[in-house]
Amino acid sequence: MRKKKKPKFLIIDVDGVMTTGHHIYSKNGKLFKIFGPHDHDGIKLLKDFIKILFVTADKIGFSISKKRIQTDMKQKIILLNEKDRYDFLKSKFGLQNIVYIGDGIHDEKIIKDCLYGISPKNARSEAKKHAKYITSSKSGEGAVLDACLKVKNLFFK
Amino acid sequence: MRKKKKPKFLIIDVDGVMTTGHHIYSKNGKLFKIFGPHDHDGIKLLKDFIKILFVTADKIGFSISKKRIQTDMKQKIILLNEKDRYDFLKSKFGLQNIVYIGDGIHDEKIIKDCLYGISPKNARSEAKKHAKYITSSKSGEGAVLDACLKVKNLFFK
Amino acid sequence: MRKKKKPKFLIIDVDGVMTTGHHIYSKNGKLFKIFGPHDHDGIKLLKDFIKILFVTADKIGFSISKKRIQTDMKQKIILLNEKDRYDFLKSKFGLQNIVYIGDGIHDEKIIKDCLYGISPKNARSEAKKHAKYITSSKSGEGAVLDACLKVKNLFFK
Amino acid sequence: MRKKKKPKFLIIDVDGVMTTGHHIYSKNGKLFKIFGPHDHDGIKLLKDFIKILFVTADKIGFSISKKRIQTDMKQKIILLNEKDRYDFLKSKFGLQNIVYIGDGIHDEKIIKDCLYGISPKNARSEAKKHAKYITSSKSGEGAVLDACLKVKNLFFK
Repeated sequence: MRKKKKPKFLIIDVDGVMTTGHHIYSKNGKLFKIFGPHDHDGIKLLKDFIKILFVTADKIGFSISKKRIQTDMKQKIILLNEKDRYDFLKSKFGLQNIVYIGDGIHDEKIIKDCLYGISPKNARSEAKKHAKYITSSKSGEGAVLDACLKVKNLFFK
Repeated sequence: MRKKKKPKFLIIDVDGVMTTGHHIYSKNGKLFKIFGPHDHDGIKLLKDFIKILFVTADKIGFSISKKRIQTDMKQKIILLNEKDRYDFLKSKFGLQNIVYIGDGIHDEKIIKDCLYGISPKNARSEAKKHAKYITSSKSGEGAVLDACLKVKNLFFK
Repeated sequence: MRKKKKPKFLIIDVDGVMTTGHHIYSKNGKLFKIFGPHDHDGIKLLKDFIKILFVTADKIGFSISKKRIQTDMKQKIILLNEKDRYDFLKSKFGLQNIVYIGDGIHDEKIIKDCLYGISPKNARSEAKKHAKYITSSKSGEGAVLDACLKVKNLFFK
Repeated sequence: MRKKKKPKFLIIDVDGVMTTGHHIYSKNGKLFKIFGPHDHDGIKLLKDFIKILFVTADKIGFSISKKRIQTDMKQKIILLNEKDRYDFLKSKFGLQNIVYIGDGIHDEKIIKDCLYGISPKNARSEAKKHAKYITSSKSGEGAVLDACLKVKNLFFK
């Protein structure tokens, strides 16, 4: 299936998409997140074709996500509350201009209404219900590379 | 199946229910636990309908669990030995007033005798034997959100 | 199947039996191991019936294993090279007096020749080949509780 | 199947082959990698038959990989960019002299053109497409021991 309309923005939720979703705690609080292999390769494949933005609702773990996404992968990441996310993406980018990758119950509506919604294999069933593509890898195991290959193949070949 | 009697308390065991069950050790002792995605979303869905209490028998790792549950999720957590747990819950809340989520061999009797017993998919078979609902997600991968959606749907819709 | 001869010793390999088998490294070396839920419950079930000894070949990570097994679980643990292990156990305890739980390629011979050999579900196929019982849980997910329930049921009921 | 030509070099990619592929981050950056059980046993089985070299493209995590491979396992490891890897291995060793174990999309061509290409069970499908052997264990769970047993059996028996 080849789409006529090309997306302009790739919006990627961080926790449960770029990570396994786990939050590793010590007695001092949330200390670690688990990022996976392959996904950085996917970002490199797409970055010349589409604007990429990472979003996360995890305020407490933001410095961890920023270290991976911004410092090491040189990508843009913003804090974006799950409740405001739909309206923000709609007014800022236009939902029909974006590919969105998300895994949680609050992502369901965005995945439904954006141009092309994607969920990792291990996403909540609520998120996967309206996804146009479900990755064959789990989050933290290559789901984002799966998604990037799909998007490149579909829109930018 | 809709229950006539509504539960007043949701009692959630921490290790193996809110976490993967793993205890990460260094040479200095038990340092980390692995909490999952989605579960906090479930707690938020239910907190206006039912009183929620987290219980744990893990004395050594209590400060870790408290950091996640009390500091970050703003929920109540108490140390409650597995051997005293049945009698404590019975005398304090009344077993027929509680929904209980547990995963271990010592949880079997509580799960059997409470109003509505729940076990994560990866719980001990002894715990699952009498559970009225077994989650479709594993612990640390959304089991508690599964449970909260089920409880809301069943008792508070 | 009820065995006539009762074992006197339960010998438990640590890595890949009491742990997931993973070695978590930082730039400073091997820092963490991942122990699972339920297994301590199994040890408590058996400790009045049989002498329990933990063995490990991991010299570099010995202080980590000791912290879990000796300090927190109050059990005995010794360093025992995999190549010397067979002869040591034979001369010290007599292989026909022991139940042995192991997962690696070097455990094959002990599992074969001891009174009752057990392997976790995720052990090497070489270890599982001669095991009289293969646990239904993976290591680090309750394999040792499975094994303890089996041993109690078989020999000490 | 017995190969006439014997390989002279075993080249092993680190991330996703010797590790689970996960990168554990704190707010201070990439801190940990997860190495598995069994693989060191495999290296010991083969080290007298073939020259072994570990390669990694992960510059940021190089000190972590070096600690495991060089300090603790006493093996040789070099930083080798994925884009330069094919040409480097070709000119330095000759592709028909090497067994290569890799898991990523950039490993596809090397796996195809080397004497004997191997991929872990959980490798990218692109890598597995041309692999002559796919391990039955996942990376970080014994994939390299699987590979070493296969190579020993095939070429050095």
